[in-house]
Amino acid sequence: MKHEDLIVKTLGKATLKSTLKPCALSEDDSFGFVENEDRVLKDATLKHFLYCTENNETPVSFEKAGPHKHLFFKPEDSRVAIVTCGGLCPGVNDVIQSLVNQFNYRYNVKQIYGIQYGFEGFIKKYNHPVAELTPKSIDKIHLFGGTVLGSSRGKQDIAQIVDRLCELDINILFCIGGDGTLRGAHAIHQEIVKRNLRIVVAGVPKTIDNDISFIDKSFGFETAFAIAGDIIRSAHNEAIGAWNGIALVKLMGRNSGFIAANAALAMKEVNFVLIPEDPFQLHGSKGFLKALRARLDNRHHALVVIAEGAGQDLFDDAEKRKDPSGNLLNKDIGLFLKQKISEEFHSANFRYSLKYIDPSYIIRSAPANANDSKFCGLLARNAVHAAMAGKTDFVVGHWNDNFTLIPIPVAVSETKKIDVGGELWWNVLETTGQPAKMRD
Amino acid sequence: MKHEDLIVKTLGKATLKSTLKPCALSEDDSFGFVENEDRVLKDATLKHFLYCTENNETPVSFEKAGPHKHLFFKPEDSRVAIVTCGGLCPGVNDVIQSLVNQFNYRYNVKQIYGIQYGFEGFIKKYNHPVAELTPKSIDKIHLFGGTVLGSSRGKQDIAQIVDRLCELDINILFCIGGDGTLRGAHAIHQEIVKRNLRIVVAGVPKTIDNDISFIDKSFGFETAFAIAGDIIRSAHNEAIGAWNGIALVKLMGRNSGFIAANAALAMKEVNFVLIPEDPFQLHGSKGFLKALRARLDNRHHALVVIAEGAGQDLFDDAEKRKDPSGNLLNKDIGLFLKQKISEEFHSANFRYSLKYIDPSYIIRSAPANANDSKFCGLLARNAVHAAMAGKTDFVVGHWNDNFTLIPIPVAVSETKKIDVGGELWWNVLETTGQPAKMRD
Amino acid sequence: MKHEDLIVKTLGKATLKSTLKPCALSEDDSFGFVENEDRVLKDATLKHFLYCTENNETPVSFEKAGPHKHLFFKPEDSRVAIVTCGGLCPGVNDVIQSLVNQFNYRYNVKQIYGIQYGFEGFIKKYNHPVAELTPKSIDKIHLFGGTVLGSSRGKQDIAQIVDRLCELDINILFCIGGDGTLRGAHAIHQEIVKRNLRIVVAGVPKTIDNDISFIDKSFGFETAFAIAGDIIRSAHNEAIGAWNGIALVKLMGRNSGFIAANAALAMKEVNFVLIPEDPFQLHGSKGFLKALRARLDNRHHALVVIAEGAGQDLFDDAEKRKDPSGNLLNKDIGLFLKQKISEEFHSANFRYSLKYIDPSYIIRSAPANANDSKFCGLLARNAVHAAMAGKTDFVVGHWNDNFTLIPIPVAVSETKKIDVGGELWWNVLETTGQPAKMRD
Amino acid sequence: MKHEDLIVKTLGKATLKSTLKPCALSEDDSFGFVENEDRVLKDATLKHFLYCTENNETPVSFEKAGPHKHLFFKPEDSRVAIVTCGGLCPGVNDVIQSLVNQFNYRYNVKQIYGIQYGFEGFIKKYNHPVAELTPKSIDKIHLFGGTVLGSSRGKQDIAQIVDRLCELDINILFCIGGDGTLRGAHAIHQEIVKRNLRIVVAGVPKTIDNDISFIDKSFGFETAFAIAGDIIRSAHNEAIGAWNGIALVKLMGRNSGFIAANAALAMKEVNFVLIPEDPFQLHGSKGFLKALRARLDNRHHALVVIAEGAGQDLFDDAEKRKDPSGNLLNKDIGLFLKQKISEEFHSANFRYSLKYIDPSYIIRSAPANANDSKFCGLLARNAVHAAMAGKTDFVVGHWNDNFTLIPIPVAVSETKKIDVGGELWWNVLETTGQPAKMRD
Repeated sequence: MKHEDLIVKTLGKATLKSTLKPCALSEDDSFGFVENEDRVLKDATLKHFLYCTENNETPVSFEKAGPHKHLFFKPEDSRVAIVTCGGLCPGVNDVIQSLVNQFNYRYNVKQIYGIQYGFEGFIKKYNHPVAELTPKSIDKIHLFGGTVLGSSRGKQDIAQIVDRLCELDINILFCIGGDGTLRGAHAIHQEIVKRNLRIVVAGVPKTIDNDISFIDKSFGFETAFAIAGDIIRSAHNEAIGAWNGIALVKLMGRNSGFIAANAALAMKEVNFVLIPEDPFQLHGSKGFLKALRARLDNRHHALVVIAEGAGQDLFDDAEKRKDPSGNLLNKDIGLFLKQKISEEFHSANFRYSLKYIDPSYIIRSAPANANDSKFCGLLARNAVHAAMAGKTDFVVGHWNDNFTLIPIPVAVSETKKIDVGGELWWNVLETTGQPAKMRD
Repeated sequence: MKHEDLIVKTLGKATLKSTLKPCALSEDDSFGFVENEDRVLKDATLKHFLYCTENNETPVSFEKAGPHKHLFFKPEDSRVAIVTCGGLCPGVNDVIQSLVNQFNYRYNVKQIYGIQYGFEGFIKKYNHPVAELTPKSIDKIHLFGGTVLGSSRGKQDIAQIVDRLCELDINILFCIGGDGTLRGAHAIHQEIVKRNLRIVVAGVPKTIDNDISFIDKSFGFETAFAIAGDIIRSAHNEAIGAWNGIALVKLMGRNSGFIAANAALAMKEVNFVLIPEDPFQLHGSKGFLKALRARLDNRHHALVVIAEGAGQDLFDDAEKRKDPSGNLLNKDIGLFLKQKISEEFHSANFRYSLKYIDPSYIIRSAPANANDSKFCGLLARNAVHAAMAGKTDFVVGHWNDNFTLIPIPVAVSETKKIDVGGELWWNVLETTGQPAKMRD
Repeated sequence: MKHEDLIVKTLGKATLKSTLKPCALSEDDSFGFVENEDRVLKDATLKHFLYCTENNETPVSFEKAGPHKHLFFKPEDSRVAIVTCGGLCPGVNDVIQSLVNQFNYRYNVKQIYGIQYGFEGFIKKYNHPVAELTPKSIDKIHLFGGTVLGSSRGKQDIAQIVDRLCELDINILFCIGGDGTLRGAHAIHQEIVKRNLRIVVAGVPKTIDNDISFIDKSFGFETAFAIAGDIIRSAHNEAIGAWNGIALVKLMGRNSGFIAANAALAMKEVNFVLIPEDPFQLHGSKGFLKALRARLDNRHHALVVIAEGAGQDLFDDAEKRKDPSGNLLNKDIGLFLKQKISEEFHSANFRYSLKYIDPSYIIRSAPANANDSKFCGLLARNAVHAAMAGKTDFVVGHWNDNFTLIPIPVAVSETKKIDVGGELWWNVLETTGQPAKMRD
Repeated sequence: MKHEDLIVKTLGKATLKSTLKPCALSEDDSFGFVENEDRVLKDATLKHFLYCTENNETPVSFEKAGPHKHLFFKPEDSRVAIVTCGGLCPGVNDVIQSLVNQFNYRYNVKQIYGIQYGFEGFIKKYNHPVAELTPKSIDKIHLFGGTVLGSSRGKQDIAQIVDRLCELDINILFCIGGDGTLRGAHAIHQEIVKRNLRIVVAGVPKTIDNDISFIDKSFGFETAFAIAGDIIRSAHNEAIGAWNGIALVKLMGRNSGFIAANAALAMKEVNFVLIPEDPFQLHGSKGFLKALRARLDNRHHALVVIAEGAGQDLFDDAEKRKDPSGNLLNKDIGLFLKQKISEEFHSANFRYSLKYIDPSYIIRSAPANANDSKFCGLLARNAVHAAMAGKTDFVVGHWNDNFTLIPIPVAVSETKKIDVGGELWWNVLETTGQPAKMRD
């Protein structure tokens, strides 16, 4: 990661004086704004500090988000479009609402439009109307899960999208979505550059799996593992309610097991957490089935949590399917594991009772909890500050207690994963008491 | 239904004066007890009253539950066993706790035992220890779902059960369970009669489906449809989040659609409720798929709730499986319907998005809500009153605002179902706006 | 209570054939309607049946609610006004929504108006606009507590109200409110009769205290005691967290202790329930303070729940205040009791810790839970059926598992109270273990 | 703040090899431990980095928490005492449970004792028994609010406490409590040093107000503002339910308004947040009452949240009371403000309706939510690591995404407050739209 890669682009020089007064205390109106030079260290350890000073290196850092003294866009000329793509995630409506309120009340931007059903909403043939968004029209949406704008998956023609932006005379585009959406947003930005248009493209990264790099947590994630925790508690009741009762809960986590790991840290009754980052074997003396049997012999119940992306290497045949967004579709490891446990214990003539729980949509369609709701509001406000200052091709993020701005190409460059040699995973192992390595 | 069938049996004459004072106001201690003649009319309409008086008929009625002036059992000689069988249901722990507290604090019965893992717990070969139950040992269990005693399904040898009851010197047996369990309880009662033992058998009917006859609601049912309602609300977010979004929720209801129907009355966003009592066709001009398509064309989203026992006649092959309790296992109508919708709309080249949600165990393993918790407590207290008075082969129930006692054979004689010509179902149709008859 | 008093009035003969088909099964459209003769027995015991037949008496009964074969109002001519008065109660928005949906979708009545801020909304000088209500405008209101129409307390001039009804050309007026509101509704009805107008007046009784006579439960009540139960659970944590910890919770219940009693039956940790119906002394050998001290000496914590109307006779001076609706304002028994406990234990040099909790508005402003939401919907639907059939001066109620109609004068004739010699109160005493009589 | 002040003391050299394997991946057992040199920068900005390097300064940093390669205590010789002091806070039971489980399962320390009712539990005359704590005895406590150990306020004799520690042969003392408790812990530490004993004193800072310095959030805080948010939502229903409806909610926050500020960021309906850090006037053209009136004239409802410590300068007389812990007792600003609003609007003949809500104990006695539960677990685990390594006179904290250790004297050196010139407060002002300065 080089410093230059982490510089957020701007459309041009911001020259319009902002009317905001970000320091409530100061008489001097020019006080309290962020500057481009305000940056947050990626590595906040003293050791890294010493390393950098010794080696005369500038440490890697992220641009700090916040209100800028000068704006690029005149409020009265600004026209904003907001689009939500991909699967549901708690907090999407909070983000939409805070974007609208911040533009309207704080920056006096009154022309805000909702593009319906994701990128589809830009494409003529789908014929989705554009919605006018006002503080009143989105009054209570933060209390509901889902997205009031509707969503869709899959790529759309970039040229047509930009045509439509021009037609609608939009100069600020907000994309709320995951990996694929942000790649789309970057492609839109590139097309805008090619056409030499004055449109900024801003992203609010949405990933219930919490797997966007260089962002310490994504909105909705805390809500997700809280609901997962409630379900795990129910599952625990099932496990202890039967002799050798096994409750098997499948949670989201296509490539990263953050929801499973954090839910287990919150609900300490979990005995096994299986995640994509830590491959495991079923059979053999160190395999999962042996460990599960040992747990049952010892305590007569077991609670197993598995992330949907775990154990994909266990499937015999390797033909892979993709969803309309191009995400690799996982085989259903939950049903697979259920079957393998049954086969094993059945053939061993071992009495047990297995309950399989797949909450899926129940988690992602919930409204945000209080902390996520607050977080969404602050993400959105900071994203608006950046857009009004003419920043483009960026996502808003959070790092070391600060809101940050990150170039989209960096944010989508790699998937954030649990470091199985690190603290988080080790704490999961300590909490569950599961073997550190369930493979030879 | 004849009057004689509804007379609850007793072990013999109750002669011990109760020390309870059920009327807080009266100085006269003999006041406020129920008598065997206290009965609750099954049909509380004026029309039925007039019919009976005109025809000189005695109306059908249920014995009213409550404290009896005389007890059959001496508290110091009483030994109680409690067993929980079958699937989980919100409130089981509430019932256990209230039984223990009522016996201990109010009747001064101190010897109370928990039989573990259902009827299995009586059988030697399973080797489950018996748990001593005291108010302290079951202190907070009402705050948890599940059953602290564990449960199991399936029949066990009746003779061995009665042997074990004798060995443990039990004279009051409490069975908390559904249809199958109550049939088992009745068989135990018959064996007790055959052996001429002084043991009463009492049942607290547990059925999350609310399908026990002559009982207006079963414990845990309100909690069940409340949680189902929350899930339906989430499902609604999924439905409106996509173009032609369909959310399909499968709820419990093997033979009766009470949970589905009541959840739809509580959460008014539901568009279709499919239940076992009202067969439907998939195809044809009146079929479900046509109606679903019409809804989508009109509103572009649809919320469908299906009880697990609905549409079983739609499966081609008729081979039926049973679970260990002898319950007929339904084919998975949820997955079936999901597939049929996909086939239909795919072949019609109709764009849609379907989310399938099967919450199952999440509902039944939850703790009871406040009203159910209260209801469980009162059911248990009334059951204890009856048992101490020597009543046997009965379940405790509720009818026309009174707690009642019903002979077990009557309670299990038929499954309670939704009358599809009646008020409840009609109100569902009014609320959903679905066609009254989705078949030719 | 005489039979004649329980006959609900009608504006005149209903002659318009209803288009509803209340029996989903029947081919015959005329099937499934209620008739005026359909009535529900007040007393559903066999003993009362026998008494009536022996004495040749007709038992007291309530008119059964439901759809009528003939309507009084033509849908296209019908203009409905809805007004909500008095304090908040869970479920008011559910009732409003179900009224609107039922009129609009089922009876095809499209002209529905919301009168804002209670009876004030009819009075010119307040200048509150009238709101047009459509299914879309009240789409999600059932998910929120409070009332979207606003409310107010206090009497308004009846003549002006009727003037305004005429001006707005209303012929169906719905009043959602408590005692005072219903008395106002009856006065409006009388004025309408005097003026010989064709306007029906219908009431949906709202009382979080559950204290309307001849109605087995009022909407919002279950939600209220459920939330009270959660707060009691928190209070219990406070009580056990300190040496001789006392948690004192004041709950609603101006004249009747139903919320306090039912919350204690749901949350079994309560040690004392103090209600208006059962006067108690503070001092003396049987007094509350002695009993509280005994509990603390024994267990070192105590949880006390008091209804706001309890112990009003304990105040020295008798000057009484009334609120704008004319309800007698209670002295604050919670703060009073807190002080008395402190005085007593302080003077006895007894170490203790008292936490006082007054949740008040938190309970009444919550949204309805699932069972209440369902109940509100059915109340509203049945009220609409009656209004369309020309019934007037009535409230909709519920009795012995049926929805009923009751003349307003009967409903407000007396306040429903807990029978302290009856089952409910005795079960509270059994659950709490408190002395049956805390007075000499 | 000097670097030396932030060095955590140790009892002596840790020489016993730890059996933990904190890096799940590595074959090398010595990998993954923290060292004393692992530290976390206080200021993670690039500007501060540049400043330090230019000025050749070492930046201020906190010791990183984690497992140490060598332990000071032998597990078999270790005897742990845990004590909880002061008011309740969500998560205390989580901390207790995780301490016990970590000591027992991970460090094989089996002798763990619960001191009951705070520091009182050490003092002979109170005669509180000491509780033995095992994983089984504290099995489900994390699901309950409060503290299973009981608590108390106030100072106790330090010498007697240390006497008792010796008598019980404790070598690891855990104090869970706030400011006063930590000062007590430090005094105990000093007495231990004086007596030259081998006892470590560890603190887990408990402050629902989130006002401990150098710790970015305290456990239970997120839960607290989440529950506050729910109550604010209810209050909002009250405000909009009446003409010129004002809902006034008093929240915790003796010296710092974090709960009020964060609840307002989560629940965006709040119109005014009043906190101790930002003094306001009642009267005058910039005063609060003017601003409130303007809001009402404009929107006809207002939602006001006030921290208990706000506006203390508004009280005429300055006599101050303290609670048993020595905390200054605030005057009741909620009731005061309620009265002042009433006086103002009454004298102006302005129609309004005010509802005052003081949830207090309801918030602090709740169980921790999922994220707090996880946080409590990790705090406790890290505190155990440090104690086993012989660290003493420290609290465990969290900073820039890392768990940290801080000397107690530093943690209690000053109260953390909201910077009213900073981002958090400005975002509150932006969200509420309230005037930045309500004073001349």
